[in-house]
Amino acid sequence: MTVRVGVIGVGMIGQDHIRRLTHVLSGARVVAVTDVDLDRAKTVADDLPGSRLHQTGQELIAADDVDAIVVSSWGPTHEEYVLAGIAAGKQVFCEKPLATTREACERILDAEVAAGRRLVMVGFMRRYDAQYRAMKETVTSGDIGAPLLMHAAHRNPSVPPSFTSDMTINDSTVHDIDVARWMFDDEIAGITILKPRVNSNAAEGFNDPLMVLLEMTSGVLVDVEASVNAAYGYDIRGEVVGESGTVELSESAGAIVKRAGQHSGRVPGDWRERFVRAFDIELQAWIDAVTAGTTTGPSAWDGYAATVCTDAGLEALRTGQRVPVKMRERPDLYKAQ
Amino acid sequence: MTVRVGVIGVGMIGQDHIRRLTHVLSGARVVAVTDVDLDRAKTVADDLPGSRLHQTGQELIAADDVDAIVVSSWGPTHEEYVLAGIAAGKQVFCEKPLATTREACERILDAEVAAGRRLVMVGFMRRYDAQYRAMKETVTSGDIGAPLLMHAAHRNPSVPPSFTSDMTINDSTVHDIDVARWMFDDEIAGITILKPRVNSNAAEGFNDPLMVLLEMTSGVLVDVEASVNAAYGYDIRGEVVGESGTVELSESAGAIVKRAGQHSGRVPGDWRERFVRAFDIELQAWIDAVTAGTTTGPSAWDGYAATVCTDAGLEALRTGQRVPVKMRERPDLYKAQ
Amino acid sequence: MTVRVGVIGVGMIGQDHIRRLTHVLSGARVVAVTDVDLDRAKTVADDLPGSRLHQTGQELIAADDVDAIVVSSWGPTHEEYVLAGIAAGKQVFCEKPLATTREACERILDAEVAAGRRLVMVGFMRRYDAQYRAMKETVTSGDIGAPLLMHAAHRNPSVPPSFTSDMTINDSTVHDIDVARWMFDDEIAGITILKPRVNSNAAEGFNDPLMVLLEMTSGVLVDVEASVNAAYGYDIRGEVVGESGTVELSESAGAIVKRAGQHSGRVPGDWRERFVRAFDIELQAWIDAVTAGTTTGPSAWDGYAATVCTDAGLEALRTGQRVPVKMRERPDLYKAQ
Amino acid sequence: MTVRVGVIGVGMIGQDHIRRLTHVLSGARVVAVTDVDLDRAKTVADDLPGSRLHQTGQELIAADDVDAIVVSSWGPTHEEYVLAGIAAGKQVFCEKPLATTREACERILDAEVAAGRRLVMVGFMRRYDAQYRAMKETVTSGDIGAPLLMHAAHRNPSVPPSFTSDMTINDSTVHDIDVARWMFDDEIAGITILKPRVNSNAAEGFNDPLMVLLEMTSGVLVDVEASVNAAYGYDIRGEVVGESGTVELSESAGAIVKRAGQHSGRVPGDWRERFVRAFDIELQAWIDAVTAGTTTGPSAWDGYAATVCTDAGLEALRTGQRVPVKMRERPDLYKAQ
Repeated sequence: MTVRVGVIGVGMIGQDHIRRLTHVLSGARVVAVTDVDLDRAKTVADDLPGSRLHQTGQELIAADDVDAIVVSSWGPTHEEYVLAGIAAGKQVFCEKPLATTREACERILDAEVAAGRRLVMVGFMRRYDAQYRAMKETVTSGDIGAPLLMHAAHRNPSVPPSFTSDMTINDSTVHDIDVARWMFDDEIAGITILKPRVNSNAAEGFNDPLMVLLEMTSGVLVDVEASVNAAYGYDIRGEVVGESGTVELSESAGAIVKRAGQHSGRVPGDWRERFVRAFDIELQAWIDAVTAGTTTGPSAWDGYAATVCTDAGLEALRTGQRVPVKMRERPDLYKAQ
Repeated sequence: MTVRVGVIGVGMIGQDHIRRLTHVLSGARVVAVTDVDLDRAKTVADDLPGSRLHQTGQELIAADDVDAIVVSSWGPTHEEYVLAGIAAGKQVFCEKPLATTREACERILDAEVAAGRRLVMVGFMRRYDAQYRAMKETVTSGDIGAPLLMHAAHRNPSVPPSFTSDMTINDSTVHDIDVARWMFDDEIAGITILKPRVNSNAAEGFNDPLMVLLEMTSGVLVDVEASVNAAYGYDIRGEVVGESGTVELSESAGAIVKRAGQHSGRVPGDWRERFVRAFDIELQAWIDAVTAGTTTGPSAWDGYAATVCTDAGLEALRTGQRVPVKMRERPDLYKAQ
Repeated sequence: MTVRVGVIGVGMIGQDHIRRLTHVLSGARVVAVTDVDLDRAKTVADDLPGSRLHQTGQELIAADDVDAIVVSSWGPTHEEYVLAGIAAGKQVFCEKPLATTREACERILDAEVAAGRRLVMVGFMRRYDAQYRAMKETVTSGDIGAPLLMHAAHRNPSVPPSFTSDMTINDSTVHDIDVARWMFDDEIAGITILKPRVNSNAAEGFNDPLMVLLEMTSGVLVDVEASVNAAYGYDIRGEVVGESGTVELSESAGAIVKRAGQHSGRVPGDWRERFVRAFDIELQAWIDAVTAGTTTGPSAWDGYAATVCTDAGLEALRTGQRVPVKMRERPDLYKAQ
Repeated sequence: MTVRVGVIGVGMIGQDHIRRLTHVLSGARVVAVTDVDLDRAKTVADDLPGSRLHQTGQELIAADDVDAIVVSSWGPTHEEYVLAGIAAGKQVFCEKPLATTREACERILDAEVAAGRRLVMVGFMRRYDAQYRAMKETVTSGDIGAPLLMHAAHRNPSVPPSFTSDMTINDSTVHDIDVARWMFDDEIAGITILKPRVNSNAAEGFNDPLMVLLEMTSGVLVDVEASVNAAYGYDIRGEVVGESGTVELSESAGAIVKRAGQHSGRVPGDWRERFVRAFDIELQAWIDAVTAGTTTGPSAWDGYAATVCTDAGLEALRTGQRVPVKMRERPDLYKAQ
């Protein structure tokens, strides 16, 4: 069986998923596309044999020949499409964020709980990265004892002028928030954000870098350096400190060149280079699950938690204070994952 | 368009390619299988919806619904199936060796030249490994000057009792031979094999490790340590020394664990772990080329050269002398690759 | 000329300095020793040809045949001996701390300023470590742009049962405080200490690890993980993040062993193994300076600053609040260093 | 007791040893110098308080106030001074080579055997390098099983125009020869030298790099890439392959810089930078032994073996053939080292 996928939102990430589903992965075919920019959607559909243009996301979701939905539209529109997918009983792969407000996420939780089965996967692709998985295996194995601390850095080489400190939390740190929750099978209890010396390459009035402190309910403390003007490359660092050892992400493999007095390896240029395989593996895992009639990976609960935490992060950024994270009770549906 | 693939030979590697074509890669479907062991072929076909069992390779090649052929049968049978594929005008992906004798390889070259276009790709998957590709890019860029030497090691943790020194050349070193030819866009002029102290874990009468010296026509000297009882893991090392710098394969990435007085990274356990992505990329490249009506990658000429070189290697192993490598003139078909 | 050195305090570190002055370094000779435990001092003196036992530190300092003093006694006694050394116009090498209270340090500053020349060097040996020096050179060179952040970890494998959280600040973090001041040629403006999940190997009631946040007056933020039950080894990590790049301490060099599926390097077992060379270079620098009639390295001002900062750290540990660091004005004597 | 040292030959290496004995190490003092260039010797003596100029090496050796001799003159003069030192019953530290001919070395062996105790140490300083020592410890521990192979590279960034291929053997490879003998407590049975493609930066008619193959009597095969126009730095590589694991020299420690898309570490610029500590430790070991009335380290036998092996290497370079290494029987004096 080939999963017939409809894609809502064909901007950069949407087109990348289409390429992946069409030319890289096995078992799926993109049969339907739409976008708020219908001209763009038409161009994409025209280039994709066997696909059809839909006027709206709702129409695409309702189409009989669409088995499953990829939501890669603008964040504020996610809620509507995810809810419609749930209502239609179709599996949904939703790029982060699940929704842009806590309330919207809660409506999705309610709908999925009412449906009685998981229909939503959220695109936190780091969970599918080989290095992070090796790190989690080590943590879970007990080889380094109970975890106490995690040090992390999330460095983007640069951002467009329109990028703001809030987006550092919403678009970058949200990944570190999800990694922390997943790595320790734990929730975040509080967030504090410190503002170090400002990078002079940052736009006027932009606090960059930030130092984000996440307290897990277990007491594990996670510090995340979030830099979006790191200049030298896209660099994702992480180390979990346990009671009797540590585990850290290695530098990316490749060729080591020796010349002119140095031995050097490459730092990835951007997130695509660093995480391309994680995206592939993530979406293949979803296709395989959908083929088997179910879903997998980060749940709507994980999407909800991420939004609650980034909201707390934004408040922490604004107030300079520690902000406690308060979440509703976890429904049974999300307990046995 | 989906490429309909027939697979001849469904042992370990054949089944792995079927898994890959069915569950991992995009654009292909396995529709036909056969094997010298028909019971095994039937089991595989039964497990694979949409596939059909054929009684012989020839029948499979002739089938109308088979667009392209994967030959993963026993080496001595390769010639027959590759020639039949060429005769049928179908694209063939042939696992190494192209054929087990120089004469058989030459018959394939003659047939493909007569067909007037490339129809054969040989499975030297290291050319698709990200580290080797980064290494070749550096060599080609001129960043380290003209290449002078290459140091390589090919270490298998262990081999079955039936494995012999000849197989070290034919099954292991053949990859290093292909890497050397590809890395330097050059042919091998002579081979010498030295016999260091024997690993006491090797079977009685087995010379392991071997030290293989390949002289390229340019004068570049390639030394290859070939070990098949390395015990600690599957370890592929390589360094190209140029006039003004060097480039080497890095250790495999992953998580670095610190405990009990050490910082440690993982060495791959076997060739599957080390090269799984190279196999994926290799076969996807073939599917994409076949879809476009052509082929790509290592040619029948590369398969011929490898067989001529391993023959010379076997003689060098037997005689203890330097053995010159003599090849026929390269047909035009293989010049513009 | 050979510098004739008197050593006050012949515990572990004092005896190590005697060994260093006698058997490792050039240009000095230990001619006098004393200790609060006179029996211990006598044993040391008896084993050291050419040395004489003194009944008190004051007597030793006054001795005509003593050119320069090493103070390696119990911290609370440092003030007395350093002041006596200054009064005698003799060069003093004082192990950290310079003195245990801010007021005592200020009395030393006053005395040295009154003497009109530097007579005191404080034993912050990390400034003489090759890796830290390479790091500082990179920071100073501007190759990574203006510094924004520093991430550090100071991990001891274990501590005796008598060790307390206060000692983590006074004995361990004091080094990180000095490194931060030296690395950035800057003072510390505030300190906050966070308490992550407690290591179950820590003694009852002991907060370990700690997360120490140092704010430099420039805004550079330094986070220091201070662990004294790290179990796996003695591990000193550091990374300075600049506007356009970073510089980090490498793992300690040595041999890399591959066996049993891993490639592994050694983590130092304790601070002696990690910093033995730094101690050698530090004390040789002092001998060379004393021979030339002057001193070098960390000054009494640096000792004063360290004590003020550790006091603030202790308050931060107790209160859980950010504690500002307030220091007196820097005397001219310490400006041209 | 302070060892009073006389230095014969005050060129670059002689002056470096004087600096080391005077300003770095403990327990020795240079009291006498001479050189074939007496003006140079006078300049050195004038700069060195407490030292005296001697007109000849023989005079210096005979001087009553000279306890021990450092021979760092031109190679062909070593025999004379070493023999005179033995005759005078004084300890001699002789820079490599012990002597420039097999016969001269044998005369030294005979003289030392006749003296009945070791009086000669030869300056093979790699034995005192921390990385090589860690490597040897691993080999000796049995952790990687019996050794089978060693891969080595000895790369100099450049050499003066007067440097010849013979000097690659005599001055560079001689270190690798000593390392192999020491690493495996074994002798070399045969040498073969291969000539890869020539580096275009090498002088006209100069074979560089060379590939030197050393066969130990145990069968262990050591391959040494000897390059003296490596351009990018001074790089010493080594890996011992055992039956169940390997051990290799790590890259030199220091700071890792990330900028402009790369993470980079420094390659040493020359042998001084790489081995400065080994020289220090080597000479301190000698001083300590001399103080105790004996000697240590590489013996006259090791110097003899090195000369016999480099002679064989020169013949192998000239003939292109494997040259067997034949040595006299090892005197008892050199068996219990």
